[in-house]
Amino acid sequence: MGSDAAMSPKITVELLRQLRQAMRNTKYIAEPIQAYIVPSGDAHQSEYIAPCDCRREFICGFNGSAGTAIVTEKHAAMWTDGRYFLQASQQMDNNWTLMKMGLKETLSQEDWLISVLPENSTVGVDPWIIAADQWKNMSKALASAGHSLVAVQDNLIDAIWMDRPTRPSTQLLTLGLGFTGLTWQDKMTALRSKMAERKISWFVATALDEIAWLFNLRGSDIEYNPVFFAYAIVGMNTIRLFVDIKRLAVPTVREHLQLDTPSKVELSIQTAPYESVFTELQAVCASLGPKEKVWISDKASCALTQVIPKAHRSPIPYTPLCLAKAVKNATEIQGMKMAHIKDAVALCELFAWLEKEIPKGTVTEISAADKAEELRSQQKDFVGLSFPSISSVGPNGAIIHYRPLPETNRTLSLNEIYLLDSGAQYIDGTTDVTRTMHFGSPSAYEKETFTYVLKGHIAVSAAIFPNGTKGHLLDSFARQALWESGLDYLHGTGHGVGCFLNVHEGPCGISYKTFADEPLEAGMIVSDEPGYYEDGLFGIRIENVVLVVPAKPKYNYRNKGSLTFEPLTLVPIQAKMVNTDLLTQKERDWVNEYHRQCRETIGAELERQGRKEAMDWLIRETQPIA
Amino acid sequence: MGSDAAMSPKITVELLRQLRQAMRNTKYIAEPIQAYIVPSGDAHQSEYIAPCDCRREFICGFNGSAGTAIVTEKHAAMWTDGRYFLQASQQMDNNWTLMKMGLKETLSQEDWLISVLPENSTVGVDPWIIAADQWKNMSKALASAGHSLVAVQDNLIDAIWMDRPTRPSTQLLTLGLGFTGLTWQDKMTALRSKMAERKISWFVATALDEIAWLFNLRGSDIEYNPVFFAYAIVGMNTIRLFVDIKRLAVPTVREHLQLDTPSKVELSIQTAPYESVFTELQAVCASLGPKEKVWISDKASCALTQVIPKAHRSPIPYTPLCLAKAVKNATEIQGMKMAHIKDAVALCELFAWLEKEIPKGTVTEISAADKAEELRSQQKDFVGLSFPSISSVGPNGAIIHYRPLPETNRTLSLNEIYLLDSGAQYIDGTTDVTRTMHFGSPSAYEKETFTYVLKGHIAVSAAIFPNGTKGHLLDSFARQALWESGLDYLHGTGHGVGCFLNVHEGPCGISYKTFADEPLEAGMIVSDEPGYYEDGLFGIRIENVVLVVPAKPKYNYRNKGSLTFEPLTLVPIQAKMVNTDLLTQKERDWVNEYHRQCRETIGAELERQGRKEAMDWLIRETQPIA
Repeated sequence: MGSDAAMSPKITVELLRQLRQAMRNTKYIAEPIQAYIVPSGDAHQSEYIAPCDCRREFICGFNGSAGTAIVTEKHAAMWTDGRYFLQASQQMDNNWTLMKMGLKETLSQEDWLISVLPENSTVGVDPWIIAADQWKNMSKALASAGHSLVAVQDNLIDAIWMDRPTRPSTQLLTLGLGFTGLTWQDKMTALRSKMAERKISWFVATALDEIAWLFNLRGSDIEYNPVFFAYAIVGMNTIRLFVDIKRLAVPTVREHLQLDTPSKVELSIQTAPYESVFTELQAVCASLGPKEKVWISDKASCALTQVIPKAHRSPIPYTPLCLAKAVKNATEIQGMKMAHIKDAVALCELFAWLEKEIPKGTVTEISAADKAEELRSQQKDFVGLSFPSISSVGPNGAIIHYRPLPETNRTLSLNEIYLLDSGAQYIDGTTDVTRTMHFGSPSAYEKETFTYVLKGHIAVSAAIFPNGTKGHLLDSFARQALWESGLDYLHGTGHGVGCFLNVHEGPCGISYKTFADEPLEAGMIVSDEPGYYEDGLFGIRIENVVLVVPAKPKYNYRNKGSLTFEPLTLVPIQAKMVNTDLLTQKERDWVNEYHRQCRETIGAELERQGRKEAMDWLIRETQPIA
Repeated sequence: MGSDAAMSPKITVELLRQLRQAMRNTKYIAEPIQAYIVPSGDAHQSEYIAPCDCRREFICGFNGSAGTAIVTEKHAAMWTDGRYFLQASQQMDNNWTLMKMGLKETLSQEDWLISVLPENSTVGVDPWIIAADQWKNMSKALASAGHSLVAVQDNLIDAIWMDRPTRPSTQLLTLGLGFTGLTWQDKMTALRSKMAERKISWFVATALDEIAWLFNLRGSDIEYNPVFFAYAIVGMNTIRLFVDIKRLAVPTVREHLQLDTPSKVELSIQTAPYESVFTELQAVCASLGPKEKVWISDKASCALTQVIPKAHRSPIPYTPLCLAKAVKNATEIQGMKMAHIKDAVALCELFAWLEKEIPKGTVTEISAADKAEELRSQQKDFVGLSFPSISSVGPNGAIIHYRPLPETNRTLSLNEIYLLDSGAQYIDGTTDVTRTMHFGSPSAYEKETFTYVLKGHIAVSAAIFPNGTKGHLLDSFARQALWESGLDYLHGTGHGVGCFLNVHEGPCGISYKTFADEPLEAGMIVSDEPGYYEDGLFGIRIENVVLVVPAKPKYNYRNKGSLTFEPLTLVPIQAKMVNTDLLTQKERDWVNEYHRQCRETIGAELERQGRKEAMDWLIRETQPIA
């Protein structure tokens, strides 16, 4: 999972000078501000963002998926997490201080601001880009130290960004029942029944993947994420969709949304321009009865959240759409399975090809990633990649969200570990898989650490746990074998995966960070991806996408029922990398059963597609280990 | 770990009538209130409380250590957690609804109030009894539904409680360097340096164990907890101790606190009556400079917290005393080890005696607990029990915090499992140990579940984990074997343990609940106590107190260092209850090494004390398992 990783630092002297000038410019703010926060998201708090929203990257050079920059009159600092320490340190020049989140000695943004700011300072931020909950925390912390947080309506990065791209408005794709399992009308009715249950009059949808899921529409406004820029406001008898109106001219879209012939009045969609959400929400709020409540995600933008008067605002950590979307229905599960079979076919083909080509010394990280994309694109209903492929050789593998660039591009060889973390969007589902391979003879140490990672992967995948268990309680299972040898990895173990939607989605996940995750439920889909990284040497990660399914252990305590995982990803795990002496019999059985499934399911599809070389590779790679 | 468990329900019709009358009585409140909250704590938010503070028990009959009662005009409900479901259901009459916390269908107190209250209701609570953070959450939730939370200065339970006991004021015990490792003056200096570090002018100590620890004093105001009712306010040059002044008349106490001959002005203690803390804190706050900050625990009473103006208030989840107290120094560790050796001697003696006596049919839960207390009291520096012994036979073992009473008292036999969870206070340390034994022939099912619990106990105790790991990340290790068979237990796995202080202390613990625990550090002491409970049949729990110590695994990732646990409890785990086929070789090795330590360390002390029968029992019970 990753994004661009330009490895020469961006020169930011002049940009910082301009930004600091803007921070004092009364054209934008009544009084000069002493610090300006540049979060990484867009107005929808998307993780992946369109080029026009890459403001944090523009100002500091670091282009990972998570990070916040803060510029004061004298300092410039950027916070990111363990996945990106190396990448960020390489992409930023020495005007910037890298703040390594998760390390004990690293100050939080609030504490850092308090430590560097002069008394009674004012800190500015674009209220559309900062989430309401972050605004609240930051504002409170600053106030406690005598400073204040203010909303700067004009974005100061945009003010100095001369060639800023325009906001995309791509063609909309309508999805039928065969892909979604539920019509958008069904989803709307379910949403309203959740609203009625909690006595909620209005719901404001701001997350792009939730809006795409609700309306059974997809777009391509953001690379790798099949979403489109929109907002929706849903009342018990009203549906308002805010989107670039030009996009609705297409007959299939008009018909899908029943724009011209609504079946019932409460399912009639009123459309309005994307930008009008602010004033329309103001109008809705102006007409609220005294007890009426409006649901909005507590991660929605501060700007939109604050439109709703506090007495009417009911912020929620996870919206009903987020929760409904996470539990895949039978059609979606079937689609995800199909997508993973096609994806495995492409990867088997790729690995067979790599084996043949690598000895020639002509395959690079970039050409391997391109080949993977080419092979995936031959599969039915392929749409695009689900994130930039992390194709990394040797030391590059230790950069957790690495993306190969011409200046960093290494050649695959028989001497170094190759880590490929990649995935695709198919109309029936989204994939995300990591395999770590050695095409020569791995060292004992490489095999040892790979085996610990494999043990962690299996411990999660084979875990049986009670219904109602939250994913974060499974995280340590993935680390146990590494911890025993004094090793660890600085990222979470798993994330929710959308169905032809974002490859990262809430509300479930498997992480040592105790965020407010919702309990795992049958039908949820998450990744299982422990790793081990040795800076400057190699990276190891083994990732499957897994489906939460009911388990049937011997007993059933308090009739709670149990759950476990079923791998959707069916790509062989390289046996050559395993030190089988370190595996228990149970773990060996797991590997052999997994490979049996790969052979059976992917073998049948390779056969059907007549892909002989990949088939031979699959047969060989799925031989039982002793 | 538990408290009284009277098994016939308390009749509360008349009490509820009186309380509801008080809720409308303008003698106590300006306007009638529609609901009254009775939390379980005292003004110090103690877990164990003095009889005068047992208000929740008085009103509903339930006397477990955790629970909140709420009475409205029509309803009465009481929230408690899984440890107490059975006990609470037996102690409360049908005027009360038991609200089972942790179950998905159970409404929170806030949601329940909102669901039953008429519009615009007022909910009352004693501001001294409710913690500031709970007040905040409750107040906010009620406000969001149009209700309001108000502070009722006169406690309404006290108003109807005719024979309410007086507040205890027991003799104070001074502890010398040989027990504490640090003088109170050293601790004060360390506290002030933490205050200076964070630019804090004043610190208000409200937790009784923190005050006892800070001043190296102990009392016996609360049964099982060697604490005394007091508050302290510490400034950079001032120390104010609020305590019943009579207690300070004793020469040893006066000398210990240097009340008559302070060495330095900043270490001179000003004493004042316990009740005057409110007005004294008001006086301190009135004299604060504009930027001065006051530290107070966010769990301190709402009443005291709100004395500090918001601009000066700096609430913290864990005070510097709580954090310093949790990491035991070398003297305290040595003391804890000594206490555990003496405790193990008493338990070996007890189990040898039980083996002999049980066949006669004369030993009951109560007499076994009494015998355990008698044997412990023979040990040097014994002070008392650290909590009411949970001495439970067969089905009583499934009541997690059971305490035998005449009407529930079962006879120990060769047919039922016996669970003893008990501990003591010695001047050098606090103990807490659970052993589950069968004196006849356990069934295959009993052995199977015992073995899963043992596997969980070992998985935690033998875990190696990176420095900085929080205890909650280890909780699932304790459950893995149970989960695999569809079993679980509804309580946390471990709690911090004080040194001749409270048997439950923060800020660390091992629990599936993601509270804000602090990372584990070498020197911290916690319990490791997974269990399994079959309602109506039996209970199993295996508990050791363990010390966090550095570990030396093969590698050292990023020089972070690793930690593991060293058992302080050294009492054999009954091999007869173990199905050794279910253990791995590693687990068998752990058991044998543990028993070797028991034999070596406790054997030496039994020898020294000339306790021959216990010695024979120990030798037999510590034979290696195959």
